Amino acid sequence: MNFVIKGNICYSVSPTEIRTVNGYAVCREGLSCGVYETLPGEFAGYTLYDCGDQLVIPGMADLHIHASQFAYRGTCMDLELLDWLNNHAFPEESKFADPEYADKAYAVFADSMKKSATTRACIFASRHAEATEILMEKLEASGIVSYVGKVNMDREAPDPLREESAEGSAADTVRWIESVRGKFARTYPILTPRFIPSCTDRLMEKLGEIQRKYGLPMQSHLSENKGEIAWVKSLCPDAAFYGDAYDIHGLFGRNHESGADVPTIMAHCVWSSDEEIARMKEQGVYVAHCPASNMNVASGIAPIRRYLNAGLRLGLGSDVAGGQSESMFRAVTDAIQVSKLYWRHIDQGCKALTFEEVFHMATMGGGGFFGRVGSFESGYEFDAVVLDDSIQPTTLAMDARQRLERAFYLSVDRDGITHKFVRGIKIL
Amino acid sequence: MNFVIKGNICYSVSPTEIRTVNGYAVCREGLSCGVYETLPGEFAGYTLYDCGDQLVIPGMADLHIHASQFAYRGTCMDLELLDWLNNHAFPEESKFADPEYADKAYAVFADSMKKSATTRACIFASRHAEATEILMEKLEASGIVSYVGKVNMDREAPDPLREESAEGSAADTVRWIESVRGKFARTYPILTPRFIPSCTDRLMEKLGEIQRKYGLPMQSHLSENKGEIAWVKSLCPDAAFYGDAYDIHGLFGRNHESGADVPTIMAHCVWSSDEEIARMKEQGVYVAHCPASNMNVASGIAPIRRYLNAGLRLGLGSDVAGGQSESMFRAVTDAIQVSKLYWRHIDQGCKALTFEEVFHMATMGGGGFFGRVGSFESGYEFDAVVLDDSIQPTTLAMDARQRLERAFYLSVDRDGITHKFVRGIKIL
Repeated sequence: MNFVIKGNICYSVSPTEIRTVNGYAVCREGLSCGVYETLPGEFAGYTLYDCGDQLVIPGMADLHIHASQFAYRGTCMDLELLDWLNNHAFPEESKFADPEYADKAYAVFADSMKKSATTRACIFASRHAEATEILMEKLEASGIVSYVGKVNMDREAPDPLREESAEGSAADTVRWIESVRGKFARTYPILTPRFIPSCTDRLMEKLGEIQRKYGLPMQSHLSENKGEIAWVKSLCPDAAFYGDAYDIHGLFGRNHESGADVPTIMAHCVWSSDEEIARMKEQGVYVAHCPASNMNVASGIAPIRRYLNAGLRLGLGSDVAGGQSESMFRAVTDAIQVSKLYWRHIDQGCKALTFEEVFHMATMGGGGFFGRVGSFESGYEFDAVVLDDSIQPTTLAMDARQRLERAFYLSVDRDGITHKFVRGIKIL
Repeated sequence: MNFVIKGNICYSVSPTEIRTVNGYAVCREGLSCGVYETLPGEFAGYTLYDCGDQLVIPGMADLHIHASQFAYRGTCMDLELLDWLNNHAFPEESKFADPEYADKAYAVFADSMKKSATTRACIFASRHAEATEILMEKLEASGIVSYVGKVNMDREAPDPLREESAEGSAADTVRWIESVRGKFARTYPILTPRFIPSCTDRLMEKLGEIQRKYGLPMQSHLSENKGEIAWVKSLCPDAAFYGDAYDIHGLFGRNHESGADVPTIMAHCVWSSDEEIARMKEQGVYVAHCPASNMNVASGIAPIRRYLNAGLRLGLGSDVAGGQSESMFRAVTDAIQVSKLYWRHIDQGCKALTFEEVFHMATMGGGGFFGRVGSFESGYEFDAVVLDDSIQPTTLAMDARQRLERAFYLSVDRDGITHKFVRGIKIL
């Protein structure tokens, strides 16, 4: 676990600055020991991976992806969110009642994640505890670090997928947590109420209790679609806004009564109100921005510049199968592109996102959910991806910063990854 | 040139319908002889390409791409159009004064086009006639069919790139046309005034004369960016709208005085006025919709649904290097995605584009510029691309229509093309 990578090392040192060093990134016992132009003598005995002129970047953190929707990625792009769930997501997810199907489908998913530039992921499985554990086994074997959620949903879903009762859903969740917690080295459970329309108040109450008992983080969806928001308002008339419907049950970041931290990821936040934004800020909720999904199911463009200005915690999500691809490189460039459209068409007070800003979101931003992750600064967990960008030829000599941007726009993660390390372990 | 391809044949039969046939596409002397579930006896002696379960589609028509910007694709995404031209496009294009540089850079471009799903393209070179002819030689060798333009620009560009006079630019253009017309089997000259801000009235007048003498088609840019439109208004106070500044010189589709047809492609049309739309319809101008570029240089979203409703001729363009990739599969899915954002944020009267509609634009729509191109209906020129979409694994059995959509969203053109035919000639 002690080694040195030589190459063009690129990483964020702030939300607006990328440092590039033609030199050495050092890993000792899974942690970064910094980046050097000249290798200090103390590391001279370390194994050297000489990656020549290749690019070396921190791994990507994918804060939102549905493993149980991976099979139909890139299809079914014809509906808005709520109809899309009923017509496409729910029928596919129902199949995971069958462990044999789960075994096959999750093998494809885990293999794709392994080959991607993603080293950390927060993943939705389905309501099925057994299938979720199968997924966790495969992810553990893949080498990436992940939080995986058995989904809770006891209303507003078709019969085979809807859980029979809040009590049954909660009991199933506890059994699953007891079975998987501590079982894996890099795969952890995360509470996963699908979203407010799928969870009765009773179920949310039970999940709040489970959270307090086990101290698990949680992930869900928030303010993705206007019809969804109106629906939440009618289902939860006591909630001040959508996010408050989670908060009522202590499942929305830092608990404002007990002060206990509930690390929380809310995917989408396309239409969050000022109140909701303020609450997310106050309670340290992570926003998982999923630009491809927000286009594909016609949700809209999330005002990420506003969230940056408000100081929210921000990461990116591929959101397969709302998003078509698990590529986080694609998520980065999608985020920049839609931010330009937001500036152009919606609010010229919201400047477009820069590559620096979104690269930071994809690495240190989302990485923060996992601890000290997403950078090569000393003390960070050592996740690295090495890229051979010469697979996309050009006649121009470019500096490392330009090559980095180009590698993202030209999706070099697709076929140009030559090495991948997670917590200092080489997995590719 | 007589052969049969067996596979899952997919092609547009109307702007809203894709026909899929598990069967045979027949080519005789470069033309399609139709698609059959069972092969008619008369074709029994033809060479058979048995592509098993693969997808067989018409080639893509890319109506707008800059060969001279290909080297910096995927970089320089930080500026709006006019600054982007000055800071990125013009410095790179200046290099094509050197035939040695052109030789190297255009080799990379032509090779990438050959490997892509594109079988037809309308291409901007640079102002340099010699380099443009080098490009044409390389495209001819690649096997794709293309129109290639030596760019005209005699104002508002830096010195090495700006042509010295309208007369010099016109004379250079005539020499180039005389040198290349009739020289190639599948590579043709097209008049290419860069855009109104780059061309004096005198130059446009000369180009109008050249067009009438040689009967060439023409391509340019139109109403891409609001600053550009304001600039054109100040440069051409007599023009009723941007497109009229071309039309004054008889370079905007069907000539309304002589009735002669000037096949014309106008790239972008993000901000076309009602008058401009009506004129394009009246005179049969093709719109080249370039969604990636319109995001990257923050131009906005073109209202393609309005153009469909108005009955305009429509195709897609990759617009490298405003667009980052030459992939027309990407252009198809980008067009659908941004149309959803247009519907969501700008005008709910403009329904999102369907896959059927955009697939049609990328094949028969843009193909129309090249003649009977973009379909396997009898009599069409036989351009075909065969796709192995199993490179993107899934546990689901899908019908051909679903697989086709998926192949586009998952960019199977990147590494899944197994055969490529242009006018009945196998080039891959």
